[in-house]
Order: sequence, then structure tokens, then C-alpha cells
Amino acid sequence: MKKNQDFIKRENQNLILDLIQEHELIARAKLAKLANMSPTTVSRITTSLIDIGLVKETNQYTTGVGRKATLLSLNPDSLISIGVELDEKKIRLGFFDFLGKAIITEEIEKEVKDSPETVITYLKQTIFQVIETHHLSRNKIIGVCVGIPGWVDNKNGVVVKSAQLGWENAAFGQKLQEVLPFQVLVDNELKLKAYAEKMFRKDKIEHTIVVIDFGSGVGSALIVGGDVYRGFLNAAGEIGHTIVNPNGMLCTCGNIGCLQTYVAEGFLIQEASKQSDASSLEDIVEAAQYGHKWAVNILERAITYAAITVNNSVCMNNPDKVILTGKLIEQTDYLKDRILKESRNRIWLPLSDSTTIEISRLGKNGVILGAGMQSQREYINQLNYEKELV
Amino acid sequence: MKKNQDFIKRENQNLILDLIQEHELIARAKLAKLANMSPTTVSRITTSLIDIGLVKETNQYTTGVGRKATLLSLNPDSLISIGVELDEKKIRLGFFDFLGKAIITEEIEKEVKDSPETVITYLKQTIFQVIETHHLSRNKIIGVCVGIPGWVDNKNGVVVKSAQLGWENAAFGQKLQEVLPFQVLVDNELKLKAYAEKMFRKDKIEHTIVVIDFGSGVGSALIVGGDVYRGFLNAAGEIGHTIVNPNGMLCTCGNIGCLQTYVAEGFLIQEASKQSDASSLEDIVEAAQYGHKWAVNILERAITYAAITVNNSVCMNNPDKVILTGKLIEQTDYLKDRILKESRNRIWLPLSDSTTIEISRLGKNGVILGAGMQSQREYINQLNYEKELV
Repeated sequence: MKKNQDFIKRENQNLILDLIQEHELIARAKLAKLANMSPTTVSRITTSLIDIGLVKETNQYTTGVGRKATLLSLNPDSLISIGVELDEKKIRLGFFDFLGKAIITEEIEKEVKDSPETVITYLKQTIFQVIETHHLSRNKIIGVCVGIPGWVDNKNGVVVKSAQLGWENAAFGQKLQEVLPFQVLVDNELKLKAYAEKMFRKDKIEHTIVVIDFGSGVGSALIVGGDVYRGFLNAAGEIGHTIVNPNGMLCTCGNIGCLQTYVAEGFLIQEASKQSDASSLEDIVEAAQYGHKWAVNILERAITYAAITVNNSVCMNNPDKVILTGKLIEQTDYLKDRILKESRNRIWLPLSDSTTIEISRLGKNGVILGAGMQSQREYINQLNYEKELV
Repeated sequence: MKKNQDFIKRENQNLILDLIQEHELIARAKLAKLANMSPTTVSRITTSLIDIGLVKETNQYTTGVGRKATLLSLNPDSLISIGVELDEKKIRLGFFDFLGKAIITEEIEKEVKDSPETVITYLKQTIFQVIETHHLSRNKIIGVCVGIPGWVDNKNGVVVKSAQLGWENAAFGQKLQEVLPFQVLVDNELKLKAYAEKMFRKDKIEHTIVVIDFGSGVGSALIVGGDVYRGFLNAAGEIGHTIVNPNGMLCTCGNIGCLQTYVAEGFLIQEASKQSDASSLEDIVEAAQYGHKWAVNILERAITYAAITVNNSVCMNNPDKVILTGKLIEQTDYLKDRILKESRNRIWLPLSDSTTIEISRLGKNGVILGAGMQSQREYINQLNYEKELV
């Protein structure tokens, strides 16, 4: 990527927005100091941001020494973005203000094998219905971003492959764009969740973050330099298909011994079916609590491979933060605690002190929140109001 | 990282230098077109580069239509950098000009367990001896970069851990800096080799490159956006310590079933010792050629896990190019061909078409070349001759 002057303008503008968000209320002088920019530059950027409504001057003033100065804050009502999560059996939507606060969330049911066209119809209906019911201003809605389980060509809005949705090479983004009057983005759901994890940390230190999801598949997402690492075709983080046993079980991808065959929910249920009629992770956990040996063994093995997943991701990416999420983590405290403990045991010793492992605190809104924020960031990056060089 | 205006100045300057290097001879007008910069900006940057001697005007002119224009080229003699590779039993040095041409290479022997202080003495002696013998201008030497097998804190010049050299928390860079009159850098050898792979590609397309080394250990290095991915503490790419078998063999790190226990030379020799007195990879390969079953089995397993390494790296990083290097690849065509074929078989199917696997063509100069180039890039980034905003 050529880093040209448009790029630096965007980066400067994003930095100012990030600093205002972080401090909630901040004076221009402090912005200049923190951003290491001249007062003139800060003034020019903030004036533009106020002109277009993203930032507002408040009635509050700094109380420190020197001249009284108006404090700036983000204008929460300046825009609304929509974040969407597509799952096998449901669609989740969130309408977010500029601070990332959910104004409305909705959940609608779908069939496992609904086509892209059907989902587009649902989305269109629901979005316009919410706008009408809640009297939202259509002009304020700047975009929608849809998080999808699987491999997504985010540049072209194509779902390359989603095992969960049963879609392959679906031009979902393009088709959704045809029926909606604001910008449509499509991305991998875990990459969006990782973006939300980065955006809504309490400490505003720039971390190298790996988010690992243990659910119907196993995936990882890497945040570096504040952005999602995507790889050549936005397919990075497919840790579920790393091979851990050349003599293991057949995976849905055709390879033998993929890591997900030991951890992903579908495979755990398949193993359980040899001994029981368990049809969900919940059933297996319950059987294990009753002391059924088969269930205990399946879960113990899953815990081991979940810990291996954490180690392997740490060795490859050297993050300072690992954030765990997904059904296996959220199901029971027992599984969560065991996976945390085993992960700490198995992390390559030289990196164990410098890597902290956390549990995601975003809950079920993680994907839609990241999607909403991604949509806003893309909108801001495309603003072209600063003609001069800042 | 805050991407400030110094950063964009550096990037613009690097882009111009890269374009001149790529085209060998190029006119300012074409530079402006390719870099998407104004003629004024290009003129200002090239004038600075000519003033400090890195670029020169040639006697050749463009022959196309329009006004005759002088062609620019890099000035190979403008500077010299030194690249160093430390191995168990030898030190390799290269003196490189601004085009990356090796002016002189030297190899000196060392003992496996030589201390940092001993190596520093060797290096100081050899460098000054080469300068004297070859009548090099000391003023032209702008820096030395040392590639080290293991984990290196490149910011502070500390070798955190190198199993091959037997060093731990050695302030090698700082100490070497005390005895040399030009800038000293220290880095992981594979990261430097990967940088050389990126710099000296024939096609100048920006690739996402993974370099995998199969040698005394197993490591990987990722090039993204033209730079080496480093992670939090410059420890990214420790694929040799990803766990592939929780019931496998004990690794030197204390974990069970690390990938390198199936591929790294030392482990292959250790396995071989159960059946033979083989003391090197060469011995095992020879025994396999004689049809000894133990040797065939060890190598077949190594081939399988080498292929798994390639797949796992592709799944995690989604590169478009994988470049293989190291003793296991360079030892015999048989191993190289088998590893290539097995890797292609095992790559996760959805990514197999978009990933090409190559063998490194840099040979034994790869690390020192990357080190020499890294030293030059760092020197150029620190130049502060452009006071105005470009």
C-alpha cells in the first residue's frame, strides 16, 4: 500500500477522533499535546469535524491554569450505523450511535440453509421497519456492515465460503447494496469482533491482540497497529484448519487431523453420537456433570486442544493480549476456567510472562458492535472535506 | 504507532528509492507518475537524494517523445553496510553496496559456545581487517546488522534467548556498539532473510510472504505491507514451538509435542541415535538412500510435518507466497521435492490455488544480505535532510 498524503490526513483525523473518544471531554490544547500536532493543525481538523457534526463544543471549560478553553466531545447523535451478525439460525442487528451505544438491537429467526436472497429480504424488511417504528432519521444512517461466519472477500463483498450458512461464492454484499440506500460492507465476523475488542478497551494502550473463538468452528483474529490483519485474501486466522495430527480424524475440509476436529462443537457432538444421543454442547456438558466417562473424555480432550490453540497462536503471532470467546468459553465456568488454566500451562515458556489471557467481555453484542464501528470508520475514511494538507 | 508527518516523509522517500532501484534507470517524470506524486515533490525528494549522494544523474536520456530528460539511478558507491550471520560454528560477514551487491564476504570459524564477548572481539578484528585489506573508505560504512538464530529484542539489541549460541539475555548489540564507530543493529536471522527475499524479488508486486526455515530449528517470518511482522516482543513466527501432539516427544522448551520435535535436525539425529551412530542430517539421508528403514521412517515423518508446517502457516497468515529455506530443503533434491509435493497436498483446499510455494534462491548469503539491507534502510530512515513537508 502506498502511504500517500490522503492516508496521513485520514490517520491524523482518526487520531483526533480516537483521542476525543478516549477522553470524552478534551480541550484543543490537550489534543495538540497528545497528538503531537501543531495547534493550527488540530484547530483545522477539529473545525472540519465540528462543521460536519461529528464533534461538538460543549458548555464545559477546562479548569486548569491559563486561558479558559471550551471542551470538545464526540457528538453521539451525528450518525447511526447498523451492525449485523448472521448465524445459522438467527440474524442479529444493532443500530449504533457515534459512541458505539446500541440504540436498538433486534434478533430475527432464520432457517439454517436460507439463501443469500432470503437473508437480504429479511434484512431489508427489518432495517426499514426499525427505522419507521423508532422514528430514526434515514439521513443519519451512514452504513451497514454484516459479519459472517466463514471466509469473506471484504473488498468485493463476496462470501467465498461459509460452512455454517452453506454459502459459496455468494455476491451477498453487492446484492444487499442494491436494496439499501447506504454503504454496505461485509466481513468475517471474528475480525469484526476483534475490532470491537480493540475499540472498547478501558486501557487505551495499543496492544497486539489475538481473539480466539471456540464455537461451531475455531478461528483467530489478529489486531496489529490498531487494524485487523487480513492476509492476502482476508482469510488469515483459519487456525481451525491447522493440522495437529496427520493420523487424526477427517475434517469437513477434506484434510486429516485439523485442530477443529478436536474442539469445534459439531465434531464434539459427532464423537458423542457414538455413545449417546447428545445433540449439543450443553448435552455433553450435562453428561459430563453426571460423570459419564465418554463426555468427560470428549471435554478433556477439547480443553487440551483449546489450550494448544492458544499456545500455537501465541507462538505464531506473539500478541501481548489473548482474548477468548465463543460457546466453549461461555457455556460453563468449569470449561472456561479449565481452558484458561491449561492455556497458561501450555504457553511456550519464554512468552508466558508477556502474554495475558482474558475472556471477552463484549457478550453477544461483540460482532454487531464491531460491525457498526467498522461501518463508521469506513464512512469517516471516505469523507473528503479536508482539501488542504493538514 | 502514530503515523505522523515524519513517517509520511520517510515513506515517500523510500518509495522513490524503491522505484529507482526497481527500474535501474528512470526519469523524474516517470517517477512522478508511478509514485502518484506531483513533479515538484519528486523533484524536491530526488534533489535531496542527489545532494547526499544516494542517487545520481546519468549520461543517459529518455528516448521517448517530448523533452529530453536525464535518467536517474542509485549510486552504488554511496555507502557500504555490513551484514553478519552468527551460527553455531561460524560467523559470516558481507560488505554490501547500495544496490545490495556483495563487495566482500568473509567466513570465520568459532566455537559453538563462544561468549558474546568473544564474538564481539572476532567481529571487531575482522571488520577492521577487511576495511584495511580492501582499502574501504571508513566514512562510507554506515552500519552493521547482525542476524542471530533465536529470539532477539531488536529494539534494545538484546539476545533474549538463542539455543544455538547458548546465549540468554545477552546485551550483545549494546556491547558491539561500544567497539564500532557506526550504527549496530541486531535481529532474528530469519526475519532478516525474509526481508532480503522481499527486497530482491524480480517481480516488484507487493506480496504477503511467509518464509519458513527448516534447519536446526523450525521458524517462520511474515512480510506484510513491505515490512517484517514482529509481534509484541519481536518473537512472532515461533512455529517450531506450536504444539501438534499433546502425547508427543519432549521438546527442549519443556513442552510436549512441539512441531520442531518432528522436523528440526537435532531431533532427527536424536531419533536416529536409537538405531545408528548418525550424527548429522547428511548421515540420515545417506542411510535412507541405502534403504535403512529407520532412516526412511524418520525422513518420511519429517516430510509430513514439514508439509503440515506449510499448511499451518498458510492457514494462520494467508500469504500469497511461501518461500522455503534451510538445511532440510537444501540438503537433497529428494527431500526438497517431497516436501514441496506434500505441502501442496496438505494446504487447506480453499487457499491452495492462491498460494504459491517457492524455494529460496538467495542461498547462503540470504541472512547477511537481509542484514546489510536492513542496516541501509534504517540509516536512510534516520536521515533528516528534508526539513520541509514534501
